[in-house]
Amino acid sequence: MKAAIILGSQSDKAVMKKAADVLRDFGVAFCSRVVSAHRSPELLEKTINEIEQNGTEVIIAGAGLAAHLPGVIASKTLIPVIGVPIASGALNGVDALFSIVQMPKSVPVATVGVDNAANAAYLSAEILGIKYPELRKKLELERRKTKEDLAKDSPLDF
Amino acid sequence: MKAAIILGSQSDKAVMKKAADVLRDFGVAFCSRVVSAHRSPELLEKTINEIEQNGTEVIIAGAGLAAHLPGVIASKTLIPVIGVPIASGALNGVDALFSIVQMPKSVPVATVGVDNAANAAYLSAEILGIKYPELRKKLELERRKTKEDLAKDSPLDF
Amino acid sequence: MKAAIILGSQSDKAVMKKAADVLRDFGVAFCSRVVSAHRSPELLEKTINEIEQNGTEVIIAGAGLAAHLPGVIASKTLIPVIGVPIASGALNGVDALFSIVQMPKSVPVATVGVDNAANAAYLSAEILGIKYPELRKKLELERRKTKEDLAKDSPLDF
Amino acid sequence: MKAAIILGSQSDKAVMKKAADVLRDFGVAFCSRVVSAHRSPELLEKTINEIEQNGTEVIIAGAGLAAHLPGVIASKTLIPVIGVPIASGALNGVDALFSIVQMPKSVPVATVGVDNAANAAYLSAEILGIKYPELRKKLELERRKTKEDLAKDSPLDF
Amino acid sequence: MKAAIILGSQSDKAVMKKAADVLRDFGVAFCSRVVSAHRSPELLEKTINEIEQNGTEVIIAGAGLAAHLPGVIASKTLIPVIGVPIASGALNGVDALFSIVQMPKSVPVATVGVDNAANAAYLSAEILGIKYPELRKKLELERRKTKEDLAKDSPLDF
Amino acid sequence: MKAAIILGSQSDKAVMKKAADVLRDFGVAFCSRVVSAHRSPELLEKTINEIEQNGTEVIIAGAGLAAHLPGVIASKTLIPVIGVPIASGALNGVDALFSIVQMPKSVPVATVGVDNAANAAYLSAEILGIKYPELRKKLELERRKTKEDLAKDSPLDF
Amino acid sequence: MKAAIILGSQSDKAVMKKAADVLRDFGVAFCSRVVSAHRSPELLEKTINEIEQNGTEVIIAGAGLAAHLPGVIASKTLIPVIGVPIASGALNGVDALFSIVQMPKSVPVATVGVDNAANAAYLSAEILGIKYPELRKKLELERRKTKEDLAKDSPLDF
Amino acid sequence: MKAAIILGSQSDKAVMKKAADVLRDFGVAFCSRVVSAHRSPELLEKTINEIEQNGTEVIIAGAGLAAHLPGVIASKTLIPVIGVPIASGALNGVDALFSIVQMPKSVPVATVGVDNAANAAYLSAEILGIKYPELRKKLELERRKTKEDLAKDSPLDF
Repeated sequence: MKAAIILGSQSDKAVMKKAADVLRDFGVAFCSRVVSAHRSPELLEKTINEIEQNGTEVIIAGAGLAAHLPGVIASKTLIPVIGVPIASGALNGVDALFSIVQMPKSVPVATVGVDNAANAAYLSAEILGIKYPELRKKLELERRKTKEDLAKDSPLDF
Repeated sequence: MKAAIILGSQSDKAVMKKAADVLRDFGVAFCSRVVSAHRSPELLEKTINEIEQNGTEVIIAGAGLAAHLPGVIASKTLIPVIGVPIASGALNGVDALFSIVQMPKSVPVATVGVDNAANAAYLSAEILGIKYPELRKKLELERRKTKEDLAKDSPLDF
Repeated sequence: MKAAIILGSQSDKAVMKKAADVLRDFGVAFCSRVVSAHRSPELLEKTINEIEQNGTEVIIAGAGLAAHLPGVIASKTLIPVIGVPIASGALNGVDALFSIVQMPKSVPVATVGVDNAANAAYLSAEILGIKYPELRKKLELERRKTKEDLAKDSPLDF
Repeated sequence: MKAAIILGSQSDKAVMKKAADVLRDFGVAFCSRVVSAHRSPELLEKTINEIEQNGTEVIIAGAGLAAHLPGVIASKTLIPVIGVPIASGALNGVDALFSIVQMPKSVPVATVGVDNAANAAYLSAEILGIKYPELRKKLELERRKTKEDLAKDSPLDF
Repeated sequence: MKAAIILGSQSDKAVMKKAADVLRDFGVAFCSRVVSAHRSPELLEKTINEIEQNGTEVIIAGAGLAAHLPGVIASKTLIPVIGVPIASGALNGVDALFSIVQMPKSVPVATVGVDNAANAAYLSAEILGIKYPELRKKLELERRKTKEDLAKDSPLDF
Repeated sequence: MKAAIILGSQSDKAVMKKAADVLRDFGVAFCSRVVSAHRSPELLEKTINEIEQNGTEVIIAGAGLAAHLPGVIASKTLIPVIGVPIASGALNGVDALFSIVQMPKSVPVATVGVDNAANAAYLSAEILGIKYPELRKKLELERRKTKEDLAKDSPLDF
Repeated sequence: MKAAIILGSQSDKAVMKKAADVLRDFGVAFCSRVVSAHRSPELLEKTINEIEQNGTEVIIAGAGLAAHLPGVIASKTLIPVIGVPIASGALNGVDALFSIVQMPKSVPVATVGVDNAANAAYLSAEILGIKYPELRKKLELERRKTKEDLAKDSPLDF
Repeated sequence: MKAAIILGSQSDKAVMKKAADVLRDFGVAFCSRVVSAHRSPELLEKTINEIEQNGTEVIIAGAGLAAHLPGVIASKTLIPVIGVPIASGALNGVDALFSIVQMPKSVPVATVGVDNAANAAYLSAEILGIKYPELRKKLELERRKTKEDLAKDSPLDF
């Protein structure tokens, strides 16, 4: 059971760390790399090859601006790719969202919310949970615990 | 190996049929239902229960306008949910896209392009392909075939 | 005469407090809760049941991002629901606005402006004012007083 | 128990008729007028006066483009105003939506979805249902019936 | 030769002061008032009456959010109204721009850029310049001077 | 008393004819030309020179897409320029609206609604009405007549 | 002197033909291919290699939706790439525009207007005109001729 | 081999300096000027004449708001013009992007990303590289070096 986190740029680190944190909480092993789809395309191919060899079963890719990274990865592997649009620059993530989600037929990217790298990790866990029942269990426990915590904090004093 | 296709409204049928067609091409069994998140919430719970019992491993949910359906399903199960924003009404699918993709932390929906139900099915196949190697094979074959077909049609005469 | 204020998340507190303040000014009793539509759906049902039992006649619900909370509440009760889209995250409230206002036929949410929780309370008072003439009076007094205050401050020295 | 439907322009008739149909289904009496906020402001005042005299308890106002009508009405009465943004012209209703929903503090308009006049009528019925229990009953019956109808149509054959 | 500056809210003062400054530079007399279209409609009528009596020939009106003020003024006078959309709140002025510019047939508002109150004053001066040749002269002088200043600052050292 | 109507392209003719019709109704003489800001810049200068010579007092300029025409004219004359954004191409007039209204300080364009050439003519009449009282009278008559017509058509039968 | 036209999909043919027509008018030789960035990435590499070998000096690439094609090409060659965003699907070309223009530092795509393939060809001619003076001459002639044609058609009869 | 950098306003200096830095890195000589399309149109003509005389082969023009500068330059020369939309004011660069990229047929502007002046310089270098092989060499070296640098920084430790 293994995931990979790929970032388009060093500047996406703070946002993407949330994915790493959630994966670690669920005990999902992962490797992580910074690879630009367009500034280091050969490195990207090499990275995807390594990832395919080392048994990775889900890929999380985050990128801002034109944000082609998740789509380019999806075109080179059949491992499911989860895309995280990152808000950077003047268009504030709408550019990245459109660019990641509007992929052509047969090359999908599973898109999550802008800057919502945590959800990319939750989605990874749900996907891996199909094959690994112990991970599904952990998700169920966590969801139950979240509910209990939220219930305690529900009453509100304005 | 089983999927479910859930539509928010009868009017989403034409768009969502593309998901059914692709799943069938890959030999993925699926059930399909029209259930409104808001107009028939109890039916939705019942449907999710059935789906969880019958061994469904991935859910495709399409909806337009406020498009809460995929998110509401995701809140009630840990089976991965793929959301298809459907263009309907004056805002033409931007409403549905934002509503489906911007889910809160820990309840992700894997969002695909507006009206791109085919990609929801391709993503389902990739996800199921983690567990079912024969499905992964079919995806590889299809991708190779697509490449061959595209190569033949590449030269263009303007 | 009773209202309820429901927040999707603790982080919406500062915005939603403006609703509480206005309700208090008008002497409208209210209870308030933080309940996530998607992270604590059972708690939400329980909360709506309590609210229906305790004689609540109007519900104010605020949420950001996908902001399904007001719509989900509206699907489970026939008490009028007023939705407050909250600006949070990169899309800055347009996501929440579209998600709250574009509800399907027969499950309306009375939507007010982004972050404008005060107006949700004013609208509550107008709605309750149909049944409770003394509240309508207070609204009239307040509106008259506002006009007098604004008239005093009208001359401007640039 | 009485409602009023006000249209900004004769060209909004087809959209707003859906409100009239739903009100009629619920047995809510209503009057209806075409009054432009800006081209016939005196007529608007006169109409609001009449409406206030004749016991109207909720106002539905639909308008396109700058769509000031619902807000202008709300500034002249404390009867709750429900606004229907109508898609017309090149901006396709986003202009009307922003213009209706973003009202300043203390003068709210209860906004529903673009072109969704039916929901304005449903919301009216919910609001009037606070005071008129027999109307609330009808809403409950209709909601139950809708659920039964949707349940029958749920199975889908792709 | 007289202008009027009308603001929807005290909070628009900083932006609208730029209009006052430019008018003063051109020697155009003006009065200024804060009047809310919706929270003090009677005061607005009174203000417009005064303005019409005192010989005002052009009105500058600035407002944010739903920003109905310029349009409401335009519906009550045939003095040309120049509207300044003010960026405030989460939608950052797009709401005000659409609301001011998309006025219905026969009730135009001359709209300038978001927060660009200075341009409202320049436009006033051009409009008044049709009737008052000495003002037109001042505009020509100022434009020439601007060109000379810009020419001096044109060379740039990176 | 003279106006000019300038179009960026022959394809804008149908939209801009509405301006011509309204000017004619008010008895405002006008000349009209098709001149592209970018494809025929010298012709544009020549046209502006002619217009300035022949006593034109207000210019209406309509353009789509990048829609620089009104702004370029405004940079070459101090006659007030009214800009009509025209919806053409995929962005449907939002491009033209932003391009026309967001002019830099000291070079304003009085912008009206997308495709709303009629309002450009009404605004011209209001502006000319400052200097020509008989035109102002006509505007008052027309406004009164519109009100009477609208009053007759106000009752509505759904 | 040679150009290449690359389309992301057969469905972009009608739009991109306008580029071919303009190139032909200027006597610029070109080859044309349909190659999907994501569905046939190896074919794309092969195509770029051929193009680099055969002396191509400028590339025009058109794509819709996520529209990664121009950017992916730009990442694999230093021949200037001109991108044409194509309006297709519900987002109507805004997705393609953002995706093409917002490329990361050092991998630019020269973006032209949505569906404006003709301008991609004009830009190609201007770029090649730097090196090939006879092409620059043709551009000058064409521009002069356009001006003459427009001058003839300038007077307009409404 | 010579470029020109033209800014619409002194306030665009910080953004446009990135273009200057990249050109300098590649050894491309350039002149730079601040010239407003609308506030100093004669200076702009003079500047373009000088630029055409001094052998400039590519022009980079940056502007915010209505951002007509690049398009106006493109209408007056056949030297390729690269436009940089600058985020300034409430619309944050979307206005400038639409205004620069949506130019009419036959007057293209090669548009790069919002605030991405560096890419305007890279694009200049690619364009000049067609004619000047030594510049193309430098681009290839730089691209190779970037790849090596990125490869070193690729492994990431969360």
